[in-house]
Amino acid sequence: MSTHDDSAPGLSRRRFLGAASSLAVAAGVIGTGGVAAAESLAKPKAGQALSAVEPFYGLHQGGIVTPQQTHSLFAAFDLEATARADVIALLKRWTIAANRMSHGETAQPLTVPKDAAPLDGGSAEGLRPSRLTVTFGFGPGLFVGSDGKDRYGLASRRPEALVDLPKFNGDQLVAEKCGGDLSIQVCADDPQVAFHALRELLALADGVALIKWMQSGFTSPPAGGGTTRNLMGFKDGTNNPSTRDGKMMDQVVWVGDEGGWMKAGSYVVVRRIRIALEHWDKTELGFQEEVVGRDKASGAPLGKTHESDPLDLEAQDKDGNSVIPDNAHARLSAASENDGAQILRRAYSYNDGVGFYAERWPPWRQGMMLDAGLFFVAYQRDPRSGFIKINKKLATQDIMNQFTTHVGSGIFACPPGASEGSFIGAGLFEGLES
Amino acid sequence: MSTHDDSAPGLSRRRFLGAASSLAVAAGVIGTGGVAAAESLAKPKAGQALSAVEPFYGLHQGGIVTPQQTHSLFAAFDLEATARADVIALLKRWTIAANRMSHGETAQPLTVPKDAAPLDGGSAEGLRPSRLTVTFGFGPGLFVGSDGKDRYGLASRRPEALVDLPKFNGDQLVAEKCGGDLSIQVCADDPQVAFHALRELLALADGVALIKWMQSGFTSPPAGGGTTRNLMGFKDGTNNPSTRDGKMMDQVVWVGDEGGWMKAGSYVVVRRIRIALEHWDKTELGFQEEVVGRDKASGAPLGKTHESDPLDLEAQDKDGNSVIPDNAHARLSAASENDGAQILRRAYSYNDGVGFYAERWPPWRQGMMLDAGLFFVAYQRDPRSGFIKINKKLATQDIMNQFTTHVGSGIFACPPGASEGSFIGAGLFEGLES
Repeated sequence: MSTHDDSAPGLSRRRFLGAASSLAVAAGVIGTGGVAAAESLAKPKAGQALSAVEPFYGLHQGGIVTPQQTHSLFAAFDLEATARADVIALLKRWTIAANRMSHGETAQPLTVPKDAAPLDGGSAEGLRPSRLTVTFGFGPGLFVGSDGKDRYGLASRRPEALVDLPKFNGDQLVAEKCGGDLSIQVCADDPQVAFHALRELLALADGVALIKWMQSGFTSPPAGGGTTRNLMGFKDGTNNPSTRDGKMMDQVVWVGDEGGWMKAGSYVVVRRIRIALEHWDKTELGFQEEVVGRDKASGAPLGKTHESDPLDLEAQDKDGNSVIPDNAHARLSAASENDGAQILRRAYSYNDGVGFYAERWPPWRQGMMLDAGLFFVAYQRDPRSGFIKINKKLATQDIMNQFTTHVGSGIFACPPGASEGSFIGAGLFEGLES
Repeated sequence: MSTHDDSAPGLSRRRFLGAASSLAVAAGVIGTGGVAAAESLAKPKAGQALSAVEPFYGLHQGGIVTPQQTHSLFAAFDLEATARADVIALLKRWTIAANRMSHGETAQPLTVPKDAAPLDGGSAEGLRPSRLTVTFGFGPGLFVGSDGKDRYGLASRRPEALVDLPKFNGDQLVAEKCGGDLSIQVCADDPQVAFHALRELLALADGVALIKWMQSGFTSPPAGGGTTRNLMGFKDGTNNPSTRDGKMMDQVVWVGDEGGWMKAGSYVVVRRIRIALEHWDKTELGFQEEVVGRDKASGAPLGKTHESDPLDLEAQDKDGNSVIPDNAHARLSAASENDGAQILRRAYSYNDGVGFYAERWPPWRQGMMLDAGLFFVAYQRDPRSGFIKINKKLATQDIMNQFTTHVGSGIFACPPGASEGSFIGAGLFEGLES
């Protein structure tokens, strides 16, 4: 009557459905390769993109140079396990589940009788892989506990580059949106697929790690392609290094030989940046463009015509003032102003509804305002010469700070990708007994 | 250099782009009809659905029997205006902007010089209409202020059906997620398009109405079509009345002659229902199915084979127990158990990250848990014989209450649709001076 008792491994999510045809069943048990075949049975409404699969196993983790999906969930976890073996076991469970779900399968094989809880909650049944990626990260707390102790015997393996972020000028961080011993970023072109994946990974952490915070986000590609716009209404990411340029990625994003077990991994810095949207929306267009350093409509640098035109940081107007103001965001974040420092941004807009505000000056207004902005996500080979270097300058000089506040923050070492049969972070534990 | 100074009315959002070709420009000024033409210039990546337009003007408001979009934002507002004329002026601004945005245009024509704030923040530039609908509602507070006064001279026009919701058994409502004098539900197949629309409408309310709360939500249609699943992993909406059945909609959803100015409108009840997902996920499959009254995989009523099979509420097992338990959700919410009462559900799942919990019993655990669940949205001809009737029974008897908590609530009269040249709610104000 139901397929829940079916114990064949590697079933695709479509097998969950009681009405699965025998053809779908046959396709499902092929495993990875079978997904595409099973897909062809479905009648997608919103294009084939949702049936696309991003491979989980590989040299690098997915979700870093992967073309950006439309939805993201970023979660940070506090470890509660006392034994290293429990951490390793969790990473193994997570690896297997992440790979399964990236192919549109349930988190675990569905060998579920009626008198046991299902091994997958089923909230993504019938949905497609949607280019799901799961990107794991290790926070400083994996290497040294909050009490300063070497909780898992890993302190000596903490990467030098995994520094604690300094306090930046203007930071208004709230503890419940900061830090974490482990991180998971789930990205997909379907919000329900993303939420399903995060929730199943959370369930697999039961007793080992507790979720600390979670941030959702979205980004919408323009109809004609090209750079997306953020909630300030400006194109965001024009000067991002190209993910299609492997050499550039090796230079900017991927850890090299210097990294030991982190080689082929990357470091992620996330910042929850609240934007005073109501304030921004009442700002003159000309001033908005001076803040950003670019034309709002075209995205071109001030004084130029096309979005792709290089910034001319020397250009002056007839009065001798910089065409791109000295405190403009685009100028201050430019590689040339930061000894060549570059990072790969992969940010999402966020909308967390409204929050209470109380003005501390006349007219002493109180009420609700939007709690929305940018969930900044940046990958880099070394945060010391990447985000930290750039943001030290931005935090003190960027006129955009009039409109933005950093309220959440995290830094995580994202290990290299896992090969099939191994698990995420295996290199970190190599040579240690369990 | 920029098109911002262009003062031609009715520009499509694509005109915002500095690099718009002359062909696109020509298409843009045609107005509504031009959108489709301009669209043909774009190269959509995720199918043609995003270019689809849901008409704003019409007998009924959109977003009620409209095939459900994937993203929703529901916002409630408190009126701060003291004059009725200001409320009317707001509704006129909202009507025009909602119609424009439903066609993929900016909220207002872009006649923006550099020394003024843009009349549209630009966060949806380059994005498609995405079947955007905007559905307006009037809460009890429009008719009677919190002080009991007839604040706008509308008290005598309050519809009888717009009752204050009673307190239901088990309600744990929090004030900051309840009520409101006005409501707006924005639905679209693109989250950034939805957020843009709500934000621009919010800006147009400046000085007249303040946002009180906002709830985002998502729903993902299965690859093969059919009923969507909620976060409990069950198909949700199987027994919903068909929106394709006009006669049924007239009976269940649309206000008839009894409604005066509300004729062809509908009443919406919203409930923010938090689900204890971690608890649910640890519940045996068989018990989950008894709670719902349906098979999890197929959606079939217990004891039946197909999702569309009718519930057999009389069926007993060999021991004489009901096959569909007496306290199962599907039984208690069935029309036959409620004197034929029916409502049109149009719910969205929500994920608001994590929230703090503290157990008040051993082992006295504290930590973070998911703040996720169902944003229940139901339309009906009369809430007294619709949601209120059904929920009185559910609130006291539904075993699903073990896993769900109603924390937010609202009721709003959604007036009929506006005809072009008129405005939403015009009938309410007919015959009143300004």
